[in-house]
Amino acid sequence: MSGVMKNTYAYGELMKLTETLLVSLYGYSGAEAQITAEVLVEADARNIPSHGVSRLDFYRGNLKGGFARPGTEPEIVYETPSSLVIDGHDGVGPYIAGFSVERMLAKAEKQGGAFCSVRNSNHFGIAGFWAEKAAQKNMIGLAFTNTRTCGIPTYGRERVLGTNPLCVAIPCGPEEGSRVFMLDMATTTVAHGKVEVYDRRRQTMPSGWAVDDQGLVMHDATAFEKLFWANPQFGGHLYLGGEGEESGGHKGFGLGLLVELLCSGLSLGAASYDTFLPGGGSGITHFFGAIRLDLFGGVPALKAHIAGILDHVKNGAKAEGRERIYIHGEKEAEARALALKNGISLDEATCRMLESLCAEAGLSARTPAPQ
Amino acid sequence: MSGVMKNTYAYGELMKLTETLLVSLYGYSGAEAQITAEVLVEADARNIPSHGVSRLDFYRGNLKGGFARPGTEPEIVYETPSSLVIDGHDGVGPYIAGFSVERMLAKAEKQGGAFCSVRNSNHFGIAGFWAEKAAQKNMIGLAFTNTRTCGIPTYGRERVLGTNPLCVAIPCGPEEGSRVFMLDMATTTVAHGKVEVYDRRRQTMPSGWAVDDQGLVMHDATAFEKLFWANPQFGGHLYLGGEGEESGGHKGFGLGLLVELLCSGLSLGAASYDTFLPGGGSGITHFFGAIRLDLFGGVPALKAHIAGILDHVKNGAKAEGRERIYIHGEKEAEARALALKNGISLDEATCRMLESLCAEAGLSARTPAPQ
Repeated sequence: MSGVMKNTYAYGELMKLTETLLVSLYGYSGAEAQITAEVLVEADARNIPSHGVSRLDFYRGNLKGGFARPGTEPEIVYETPSSLVIDGHDGVGPYIAGFSVERMLAKAEKQGGAFCSVRNSNHFGIAGFWAEKAAQKNMIGLAFTNTRTCGIPTYGRERVLGTNPLCVAIPCGPEEGSRVFMLDMATTTVAHGKVEVYDRRRQTMPSGWAVDDQGLVMHDATAFEKLFWANPQFGGHLYLGGEGEESGGHKGFGLGLLVELLCSGLSLGAASYDTFLPGGGSGITHFFGAIRLDLFGGVPALKAHIAGILDHVKNGAKAEGRERIYIHGEKEAEARALALKNGISLDEATCRMLESLCAEAGLSARTPAPQ
Repeated sequence: MSGVMKNTYAYGELMKLTETLLVSLYGYSGAEAQITAEVLVEADARNIPSHGVSRLDFYRGNLKGGFARPGTEPEIVYETPSSLVIDGHDGVGPYIAGFSVERMLAKAEKQGGAFCSVRNSNHFGIAGFWAEKAAQKNMIGLAFTNTRTCGIPTYGRERVLGTNPLCVAIPCGPEEGSRVFMLDMATTTVAHGKVEVYDRRRQTMPSGWAVDDQGLVMHDATAFEKLFWANPQFGGHLYLGGEGEESGGHKGFGLGLLVELLCSGLSLGAASYDTFLPGGGSGITHFFGAIRLDLFGGVPALKAHIAGILDHVKNGAKAEGRERIYIHGEKEAEARALALKNGISLDEATCRMLESLCAEAGLSARTPAPQ
């Protein structure tokens, strides 16, 4: 299939295309494809392309490697009025996450707060998508996940934990979902995609990003990139705060470890260092939480107070040469509003991948661009 | 009062002395003095001297400034089966925290999890002391607080948030309280005490610690120390990850902001930038949480699994020149065990302050050293 390269898709168009590909090429059920397409396209709409439809490649690799098996139903293996433990049985990550969060939110509605740990899942897309589900119901939302191992503890040299992102969403807009403080961060200093960009541009990495197989700081992105893929065990990413303790690297490592304990610890699941082993599912684990805002009083007053704090911080004096202080989630919300209006722009590599998948499925990736 | 300078106190001796001073010189009630002495002496025992009895000076300043008023009872202003909002009415911080955590834990015992926001409180000592109360009951414990303003948001130059520490404690020892993962961290890169040490030693601060009144990175600890005290509004500490976004400073800022929203946001209390205003209490706010481990299944199996993850991480290969990977809370637990055995060592300045307080109270600070 040839055709003019297309860089911009309408939101609904990209969603439909992704959904169709997941059903026809990946063997996903309709429900699995629908939620997976939504979480991927939402990432692109929010300008988080690392977690957008570009992930279709990675998801296919997981199928081929036997790490993910579409058509598998998650199972509730333990529950109380305010908690659930879910076994995903190596199914589709976003489908398992959707199953888990939906049931957890129903419990939180009744109990005030609820929590859910999940084992034997797979990549669930952007954590913010799940935490936001709680925020849309006037609850504080939590979403954490472990990942493939890539990170080095303070004073270590062996990869034992993942990028282990943490996400907390706090609603504060007058209408439900209209304004959300959304902290969604890898606990490593940077995600690996950032190293790849530095490698391509032949830029020097700052201290605090990565160490070599002896645990010593690396600045050469190209050398690190080589080491990272050649050596599965030693050398890797540092956690927020970087090497040692002088600038707080032990704190970032602690955050990564906290995410690990909440996800794999509370689900009796695989820790990052035990994920993606041959012969089994990926073993990825998650942890979700929801706490109703009205546990603390009247919701409108609480939201107005929280919004007031954010506004005060945002309106503080700016550093020389800076014009704006960003509240977490703002950039993504603004990108999303633009994407809904103007369409979602995909980079060339992602467009080529979509074209190729479409060709394989006998579909055309060429549809009219949005007005 | 003269006398030989004494550097080591037995745990119980230091506790009794601190308690006596708080009653006789500070006007604390017996109950206020008891819990305050305990949280201060526990900090010294854990080798966190910045939060130990050296704080008696700061606590006295709070009395003189009218920020804290002993003899004031906290009030429950809102509650549900799984939550509390407390107004501390400018009372004694550790007493308010004790009141809050005790009631929250009782709710968590019944409900599975419970949360508590607190306004109009004061400095509550080490956050870990409070999170640990939950861990001792086989619950995950959360303890957060805002503080006097000192920190600068990413791309800002104005102090709007505090050091805003976060603490999460997860029990994992076979006996209750016998082993606890305890992440207790300021969300700023370093606490101000570290700058003072660099100033005294004329050391250069690394990037990522502090910015000047224009929001530009400072390395001169002495110059920063001068600016920090001369200018109450501009220039201050950076959050974990340092300046800008390249090494994740926006993540650390986000963590500080998260702590702020949970503490002052959920209590309708004062944000860090509104604390310690003349004519009122300090306005300090806290947030506590407790989540029962048995929400996720059998406690022994969960604890063993969590301990196994920590052991695996701890036993990973070490960086060149390093012999140990520390799990969060280990250093403090080991220091505490030693202090209970060999006594608590205080630095000279703290000893002198104690001597002077004792002289004022007509007490002797000289008591037999422990064997």
